[in-house]
Amino acid sequence: MAITRRGLMLVLSSPSGAGKSTISRRLLEAEPNLVMSVSATTRPRRPGEVDGRDYYFVDPTEFNLMVNRGELLEHAKVFGNYYGTPRLPVEEALRAGRDVLFDIDWQGTQQIEGVAGQDLVSVFILPPSTRELERRLRARAQDSDEVVATRMAKAADEISHYPEYQYIILNDDLDHSTIAVRAILAAERLRRERLVGLTDFVKGLRDGSGD
Amino acid sequence: MAITRRGLMLVLSSPSGAGKSTISRRLLEAEPNLVMSVSATTRPRRPGEVDGRDYYFVDPTEFNLMVNRGELLEHAKVFGNYYGTPRLPVEEALRAGRDVLFDIDWQGTQQIEGVAGQDLVSVFILPPSTRELERRLRARAQDSDEVVATRMAKAADEISHYPEYQYIILNDDLDHSTIAVRAILAAERLRRERLVGLTDFVKGLRDGSGD
Repeated sequence: MAITRRGLMLVLSSPSGAGKSTISRRLLEAEPNLVMSVSATTRPRRPGEVDGRDYYFVDPTEFNLMVNRGELLEHAKVFGNYYGTPRLPVEEALRAGRDVLFDIDWQGTQQIEGVAGQDLVSVFILPPSTRELERRLRARAQDSDEVVATRMAKAADEISHYPEYQYIILNDDLDHSTIAVRAILAAERLRRERLVGLTDFVKGLRDGSGD
Repeated sequence: MAITRRGLMLVLSSPSGAGKSTISRRLLEAEPNLVMSVSATTRPRRPGEVDGRDYYFVDPTEFNLMVNRGELLEHAKVFGNYYGTPRLPVEEALRAGRDVLFDIDWQGTQQIEGVAGQDLVSVFILPPSTRELERRLRARAQDSDEVVATRMAKAADEISHYPEYQYIILNDDLDHSTIAVRAILAAERLRRERLVGLTDFVKGLRDGSGD
C-alpha cells in the first residue's frame, strides 16, 4: 500500500507592498506541484491582465449568482469591488495531491479557515520596517497620492490581523523569504494528517505483511 | 524592537533500525543552532561511549534522587534500564533561542509533551519496509538472535505510536530524510507563537514609530 498525500491550501497574506506578489510568482516557478487559485472579481481589468489567468472578470450580477449557488469558497468586498475564490478547481487539485496557493487578504483567510480545516497553511508576510513599507507603496508610480494614503490605511488594517496566521515571515530579502515559504511547504507536506494510506502501511510493517 | 525567537524542542522517535541516529548526527553537524539533549541513564556504559556526551551514566540511587528532586523532564524504563532527560540544560537553551534535539521513545515523548506545550515539535521516522527494518536490525552483528527478536517486538510496539507525532518521515534515503527534518526545523522556527517581540514590532509598523 503506497502512501500518498492530500494537497494543502497555502494562504499568503500581507499588506500591499510587503513583497507577496513577487514571492508568489517565485514559488509557482520553483514548485511544480503548486497551483495558483484564480479569483473571480468584479473589479475592472487592468492593462496587461488576462481573464482566467490573473482573475475571472465577472459583472456584479454574475458574481452574485456564484455566491448564491455556493460556488465560492470565500468572497469579500475590497475598495468597492468584490473578490471570491471558486470552489471546484480547489477541491479537484487537493484530491489530486496538488497544493493550491491563495493570494487573499485577512477577510478571505477567515472565511477559508472555516471550510479548509486541516488543509489550511497560513503565512503572513510583514514588511521589514514602516519606512520600507511606505517606500514600496509610493514606488507604484501609476497611483495617485490619494490611492497611496488609502493603501497605507489598508496596510495598517491588514497588519493588525497577523495574529490569525500560523507562520510569520519578515520580508527583508526576497530570496530568503521565498526559501522560507518553500521550507513551510516542505514541512507541512510531512504532517501526519495529510498522509493517505499511512494506517495500512504501518499495519503492514507491524504484522510483517509489508514487503 | 528586534524580533527574537524562543527555541523549540525537536523530538525524533523511531523504531530501532529506522535510521534515526544517523539523521540526528547529520542534523547536529548541519544546524549550528541545534544542541543535543544528553540523557541520564542507569544502563552500563558501552565501549566507545563517553560520560556527559553520549549519556550521563548514573547508578539507580542517583537516578531515583534526580526523579524525586524534579530534575528530569521525563523518564522511562526500557529493557530494564532507566533513562531520563535533565531539565535545566533544556530550559537554558530554549531561553537563549537554541533548539534542542531529543532522541527519545514514545514514552518519553508523551511525558515531554505534557511539559513542553508549544515548544514541542515531534517527528516520527518510519523504516521504508518490514524487510528493510529486519535487515537493519540483523546488521548489528554484536547482538544475539534473542536481542534481535526483542528489538523486532519493541520496534512493532514503537511503530504503533506513530499517530501521536506531528510529522512523519519515511526514511528510504538518509539524505532526503535529513533535508526533510531540516525543512521542518526551518518552518517551525517561523511559527508565530515562537517569535518574541512581534507585538511591539507590529505596533511600530502600524503607528509609524518603527524605523
